[in-house]
Amino acid sequence: MSSFAHQRHKPPLPLDRPRELVVACAPMKSHVNLSHIVRTAGCSGVARMIACGNVSLDAKITRDGADQVALEIHRTLPPVLRELREEGYRLVGLEQTTGSKLLTEYAFVRRTALVVGNERTGLTDDLLALIDDAVEIPVFGLPHSFNVATAAAMAMYEYCRQFPRG
Amino acid sequence: MSSFAHQRHKPPLPLDRPRELVVACAPMKSHVNLSHIVRTAGCSGVARMIACGNVSLDAKITRDGADQVALEIHRTLPPVLRELREEGYRLVGLEQTTGSKLLTEYAFVRRTALVVGNERTGLTDDLLALIDDAVEIPVFGLPHSFNVATAAAMAMYEYCRQFPRG
Repeated sequence: MSSFAHQRHKPPLPLDRPRELVVACAPMKSHVNLSHIVRTAGCSGVARMIACGNVSLDAKITRDGADQVALEIHRTLPPVLRELREEGYRLVGLEQTTGSKLLTEYAFVRRTALVVGNERTGLTDDLLALIDDAVEIPVFGLPHSFNVATAAAMAMYEYCRQFPRG
Repeated sequence: MSSFAHQRHKPPLPLDRPRELVVACAPMKSHVNLSHIVRTAGCSGVARMIACGNVSLDAKITRDGADQVALEIHRTLPPVLRELREEGYRLVGLEQTTGSKLLTEYAFVRRTALVVGNERTGLTDDLLALIDDAVEIPVFGLPHSFNVATAAAMAMYEYCRQFPRG
């Protein structure tokens, strides 16, 4: 007999304060990817997300994530990133760059805006010029690049690992 | 001028030895999810995966991941899990159960088979009876459960974080 019994959809872990992580996405190519990011953000306790352009979410993917996360839609990302900086957020871009730190070695500050680029173009130069830090996921094999929603999920996981109580 | 310049598809990080992580998936509902798991496994340097049932991969998702990962197809998971145990693998199920440890607090052993359940049913009782440990991703908000490929990605990320050189 197993010592493990199913306990699916457990109640969430408590946070001592609301998460100060904001996930800010450039205009995405795929509603599927954006929807997956919303679902993961919801499960991670993220309260606020930014998306750009022509946004439509797939409720079969997000499920109740769209109830958890306040999604703000903007035309472009740079103005809202400047506002977030004014609000005291550190702007952390998720991108392979010459100056990126490995996500596994990066110490987040609590008040972080995670900046996620388009699937094809990644973080464009105007976004790279704005961010404070760039982080990248360690890659050990082909195809040498993660799906954008997968990469965003790993970054959210790492942030929550560092701030398990919010 | 930005201090970050794009450097996409960097060469992978070197491993001192081949990864001893095997990702073993129960029969999945969605080829998309399985394909995403293969892509993430490839990027994580995973050399060996088990899948079950009627498997077809979407090359637009896996990209070269299918070249990195040797994918073995079986009818069901229990016999191959018993073989993996004979080969010295610790069987770690990814599931919310009464006895699960948080992924963020779990110390992997190098020789691990990560057991991933079906999207709808999760790890069935025959699989729960076989695993040595159950791990679950911390959940902090709605919809209270991660997509299976997202959860598998977080588990692979955590394993690689603990064994950055293989």
